[in-house]
Amino acid sequence: MRVLILGGDGYLGWPTALRFSARGHDVAVVDNFARRRWVAGAGSDSLTPILGLDQRIDAWRELSSKEIHSYVGAVEDGDFLDGVVAETRPEAVINYGQQPSAPYSMASREKAVETQHANVIGNLNLLFAIRDHVPECHLVKLGTMGEYGQPNIDIEEGYIEIEHKGRKDTLPFPKLPASLYHCSKVHDSTNIHFACRTWGLRATDLNQGVVYGIETDETAGDERLITRFDYDEIFGTVLNRFCLQAVIGHPLTVYGSGGQTRGFLNIRDTLSCVELAVENPAADGEFRVFNQFTEQFSVLELAALVKEAGEHLGYSVAIQHYDNPRVEKEEHYYNAVHTKLLDLGLEPTLLGEELVESMIHVIERYKGLVIEGAIDPRTRWNPGEPVSL
Amino acid sequence: MRVLILGGDGYLGWPTALRFSARGHDVAVVDNFARRRWVAGAGSDSLTPILGLDQRIDAWRELSSKEIHSYVGAVEDGDFLDGVVAETRPEAVINYGQQPSAPYSMASREKAVETQHANVIGNLNLLFAIRDHVPECHLVKLGTMGEYGQPNIDIEEGYIEIEHKGRKDTLPFPKLPASLYHCSKVHDSTNIHFACRTWGLRATDLNQGVVYGIETDETAGDERLITRFDYDEIFGTVLNRFCLQAVIGHPLTVYGSGGQTRGFLNIRDTLSCVELAVENPAADGEFRVFNQFTEQFSVLELAALVKEAGEHLGYSVAIQHYDNPRVEKEEHYYNAVHTKLLDLGLEPTLLGEELVESMIHVIERYKGLVIEGAIDPRTRWNPGEPVSL
Repeated sequence: MRVLILGGDGYLGWPTALRFSARGHDVAVVDNFARRRWVAGAGSDSLTPILGLDQRIDAWRELSSKEIHSYVGAVEDGDFLDGVVAETRPEAVINYGQQPSAPYSMASREKAVETQHANVIGNLNLLFAIRDHVPECHLVKLGTMGEYGQPNIDIEEGYIEIEHKGRKDTLPFPKLPASLYHCSKVHDSTNIHFACRTWGLRATDLNQGVVYGIETDETAGDERLITRFDYDEIFGTVLNRFCLQAVIGHPLTVYGSGGQTRGFLNIRDTLSCVELAVENPAADGEFRVFNQFTEQFSVLELAALVKEAGEHLGYSVAIQHYDNPRVEKEEHYYNAVHTKLLDLGLEPTLLGEELVESMIHVIERYKGLVIEGAIDPRTRWNPGEPVSL
Repeated sequence: MRVLILGGDGYLGWPTALRFSARGHDVAVVDNFARRRWVAGAGSDSLTPILGLDQRIDAWRELSSKEIHSYVGAVEDGDFLDGVVAETRPEAVINYGQQPSAPYSMASREKAVETQHANVIGNLNLLFAIRDHVPECHLVKLGTMGEYGQPNIDIEEGYIEIEHKGRKDTLPFPKLPASLYHCSKVHDSTNIHFACRTWGLRATDLNQGVVYGIETDETAGDERLITRFDYDEIFGTVLNRFCLQAVIGHPLTVYGSGGQTRGFLNIRDTLSCVELAVENPAADGEFRVFNQFTEQFSVLELAALVKEAGEHLGYSVAIQHYDNPRVEKEEHYYNAVHTKLLDLGLEPTLLGEELVESMIHVIERYKGLVIEGAIDPRTRWNPGEPVSL
């Protein structure tokens, strides 16, 4: 199958490219290396020493005899993306090509605008390119569980049947996004749903939980294939951050009470879910939504797990409650349905002490490279008292 | 009160500026004349011979001894808008400063991107400017009833109480927007709601129906104050178009069966609603949503009304069913709640033959200026068979 991956140089995009290539698909990737620049701009770097895209692709060719085609450019550039889609004629497009950080989107007006422009316009360009060149192509879009927020009812997979004043309809599940980044993902969902209803496109929106982990089957074999691993306050995700903090003796950075509950999944399960979505495409005109996570945890539960695993390996691990830099509920109802991917055959990699220990062992290899100043939270959702003029 | 109006040179923005100025408020307007350029680009022009913004403001000063301050620039330019808000320190901002046409947004990828960029980024810039300079300011945002689409349940005003699996919450009403322009308005609502929840801003989203009419109390007194009146396929709204078509002997352009039902309101009621919203602001942190229309009609009912009024005035009026250029339901359930503005004291100007006749009389004055080639529908929601490569 011809598979095009936007954001193919990223944390998830690169391992996804390797997975589809390993399976014998014809893979092309698009990236403009924005993620590398954003992380550098935040004063941090990937813990893992990742190669440049060309060098990674060369290493993969050497090891597998398989070719990954690369296109360097911005998805916001509509003519560029149109040209890539016209040339590669994908049967599936996987769109990871977005600014993925909530704190980044909240840091300033300029970064909020950059986030919404890059994500919404990039995805809109993609919808037009698919419509105009490969209308049968299946769009697999990475969304986020954070689109839903924390409603006081169970979260369904994309839609909810509503009975109201004696009538009934199945409608998009209401959204309460948690940052301007999460808002951008809601906007994308709205645009994609419209394109499916209006142009008959087919799409799967993967509302993903918080991803953790470093290695996948393909990246673990050779260090040249390793994917990036971010741990800074802007681009690091919570469990990855906690594991690294345990290794370097930094207290685990729990925001507020730590009662915030979210869905989580292993990076290996991200790849399995995306594979399952591609192998079982949405129907013509269908906008399908999967909630892509395997387990729910509170932040404090994760901290306790990392503390236990770390101490088992001889580390002394402290848990510190920071003033919450985000505006979010710290104690709330949370129960999100996530059965559709299991129904397609997903076999979850569940989180436990053993898995945390294996992450810690990988982090230990590179702990000399950690930039400790990038860890503590600085980016606030609410800058407090406004500038008075 | 200090009132800032974005899009103050437009069809609704200019009469709104006059209304607030006439009431003694301190009014400033922002515009970059994009609407004038877009209509010219569509090969059309306002039927009414409108003056330039400076000349209009001069005429108003001469007639009323009141000053309207003007700022020429794009809302998408964040530094510009930030500077205007910092300088004018508004107590209320009314945001009409957007690309307002559904067909325009569907004409090409470039126009879709322009629409979503202008609308979403402009409004996002405004949210930051309010947060940083005047956090107590009340944002009055023009949304559209088209955000909701045509669900099979009654449409509530912004929120709906949902009971689900034994739990209950009041959540944003699900949206099924009808074009990429309507999607942009949904995006704005999502961003504003987030800003209210997170930064404690106060906002009223006016989900407006289709506006018709030409004159308001302030614009009717002197021709130099008249507002624009568009009748082309891109920027004209349906009843305005039908009235003009009746005058020039063009068949009324009903799309498809004409069973499409929408909410409508008179331009005079737009001004009343905006005034009511400004006089009764949302609370701190509140994202309030009003459905701003006074009556529901199907397109065919409007055509029949214009035919009757036109024939009463001696015109011969034909109704022609065109292949529907839009993708939309032509027969559907539609019942939208609209009581909140009535509760605040709105006294609707209801549509009837007399009102249509008075519109026709104004149009007759300028009928020699009509560009007939701009009337027939050309912009299709679905361009049909994709380009094959």
